[in-house]
Order: sequence, then structure tokens, then C-alpha cells
Amino acid sequence: MTFEPQADLSETLRAAFRRHASGVAVITTTDADGGAVGFTATSMTSLGSNPPLLTFNVARGSSSWQAVSQAKYFAVHTLGAANLELARRMAADRNLRFAENDWGMVEPGVPVFEAATAVLIGKTREIHQIENNAIVVIEIIDGGVGETDEALLYNQRAYFTPGEKLD
Amino acid sequence: MTFEPQADLSETLRAAFRRHASGVAVITTTDADGGAVGFTATSMTSLGSNPPLLTFNVARGSSSWQAVSQAKYFAVHTLGAANLELARRMAADRNLRFAENDWGMVEPGVPVFEAATAVLIGKTREIHQIENNAIVVIEIIDGGVGETDEALLYNQRAYFTPGEKLD
Repeated sequence: MTFEPQADLSETLRAAFRRHASGVAVITTTDADGGAVGFTATSMTSLGSNPPLLTFNVARGSSSWQAVSQAKYFAVHTLGAANLELARRMAADRNLRFAENDWGMVEPGVPVFEAATAVLIGKTREIHQIENNAIVVIEIIDGGVGETDEALLYNQRAYFTPGEKLD
Repeated sequence: MTFEPQADLSETLRAAFRRHASGVAVITTTDADGGAVGFTATSMTSLGSNPPLLTFNVARGSSSWQAVSQAKYFAVHTLGAANLELARRMAADRNLRFAENDWGMVEPGVPVFEAATAVLIGKTREIHQIENNAIVVIEIIDGGVGETDEALLYNQRAYFTPGEKLD
């Protein structure tokens, strides 16, 4: 191959994904005490629309894993450019993630940020644990579209909006 | 919620994902006769770097499903702006996907497009079938980075490169 190997296979994976763009989502749920839990995710993707399913991946070493592994319901928010601060906040200090007054608890018991470009409320269908990670499969049971905005994306360790449309 | 419901939950999912940006990858393998099989995917995402794992989702009704379900090895290509034609070709007529002279068969027997921004060669770890879909988990065994280019992304049913970097 003409492709340049990296120091090891873990770094090869990281180097490839730095070149890959990802949409940015915020995923929320509640813990066993009913407390709000959430995080920014770049792994959220559709699994099919009939029935409507999506997946996201999570590290089992993350602070949210215990709540995620036991949760029955989730809210998945797609983000726009105006949600940049929210994306950063939900990827930083977990004690500050719900410190602002920009969310509310919605049936069947999930925290929802009203400024998102869309929200999908889902129930857990399956969780597959693999090595130190897990794949979570959610079936959508409610949701709708919110603010119209340019999509927020992550690439090369920074946030962007889509630029030139290619023909 | 202030979010606007859509006609049904399938349309709610689709409407949310139109607002979500995705990186664009091309995934290849071989069928039982050794023939090249591949497709454009917007669901490819990292599952962890130690060991290096990634996932992608595929519809079990797709033309590639039989080969994917039996494959031991895959090549996963991240794409840049210069790969736009490749992205479109690998999402169109399956008989024309390998009609150009821009790929070669690489050990352990996967088709590789040399113009990609990176390639990850992986072996199948797990496949989870859910409704009419499947989640494929790949462990990386080889790969490297290729051409330097802006990431190719998909949003609102069109291709883009990242635009303004947000601060």
C-alpha cells in the first residue's frame, strides 16, 4: 500500500478518524436516582427508519456508563452552530453539564435541551459490550424538529459548520 | 416539547438526521467468489482505540449484505473532497463501482482505493442483526494515512467540506 503506517494500530485508527468528519449530538438520560446525565457524542448514527432505530458508542470507562447501562430511555439531540457552547459543556466537567437553565425533564423522564435542532426520544433496545466499549441501540418513540440551523460537526479536533457544497 | 412532530416516527428520525452531518466512508470486502464488493457509508464510527475498533451499520436488504454477512476482512476508507466522484460511484450502480482502474486487491484480500485520505484494514469481530439492519464491528489489523485533503461530509442530502472553524 502507499498509505503511511503510524506508530501502532491504535494511532492508525486515531489518525484516520482525525481525517473523518462527524456530526455532533448530545445524549441524555437519568441515573438510578433520577438525576440528569448526559454527554456529547460524535458516534450517533441511524440504523434504519422502519422501525426508527439509532446507535451510539460509549466507553465503559466513561462517567456516564453506569447510568447508560441501566437506562430505559434516552433523549438524542442533533446540534447546530448555535449549540456550540452546549456541545463543549456536555464534553467537559460533568458537574456543570446541567448547571444552566436551558433544559427540562420531559416524559418519560429524560432531560431535553430545547435549543437543539431536533430531539429524538428513544427506549433502549440492545446494548452490546465489546472490550472496554459498548454499542447502544435505541428505538425512537417520540421527538420532533427544533431550531433551524447549520449542522455542527467535529473534525481535526475542532468544531465546524458545513462549508462549500460540492457538485 | 416545543419540537415539531413529523408525520410519523420514521419521518421524525429522517428529519432529525437530515439536520445531522456525517463523515463519508467507503467500505469494501470480497464476496464468496473473491469478487470486489463495496459501498459508501455515512454510519462508520470509532468504537475505541485499544484495541482499535470501529462500527458501521448496513441494511440487510442492501445488495452488499450477503457479502458483508460472510466477510472475514474489510477495508474502510475515509474520504476527502477529491474523492467526491468515488463517494457517488460507490453509492450508485453496483456494476460500475469497481469499473475504474483506481483500486487494487491488498492482503488479506480486500479491494483498496489508493486515493482515500486513510485506509483501515479490519477483521470482523461481531455482527448484530436488529430488525432489517445490522451493526458490524471491525478490529483494525493494518492501515495508514494517504492523501491530505479536507474531509468529505454529507448533510441535507448533499456533499460538503468543513467550512468555518468555530471558536
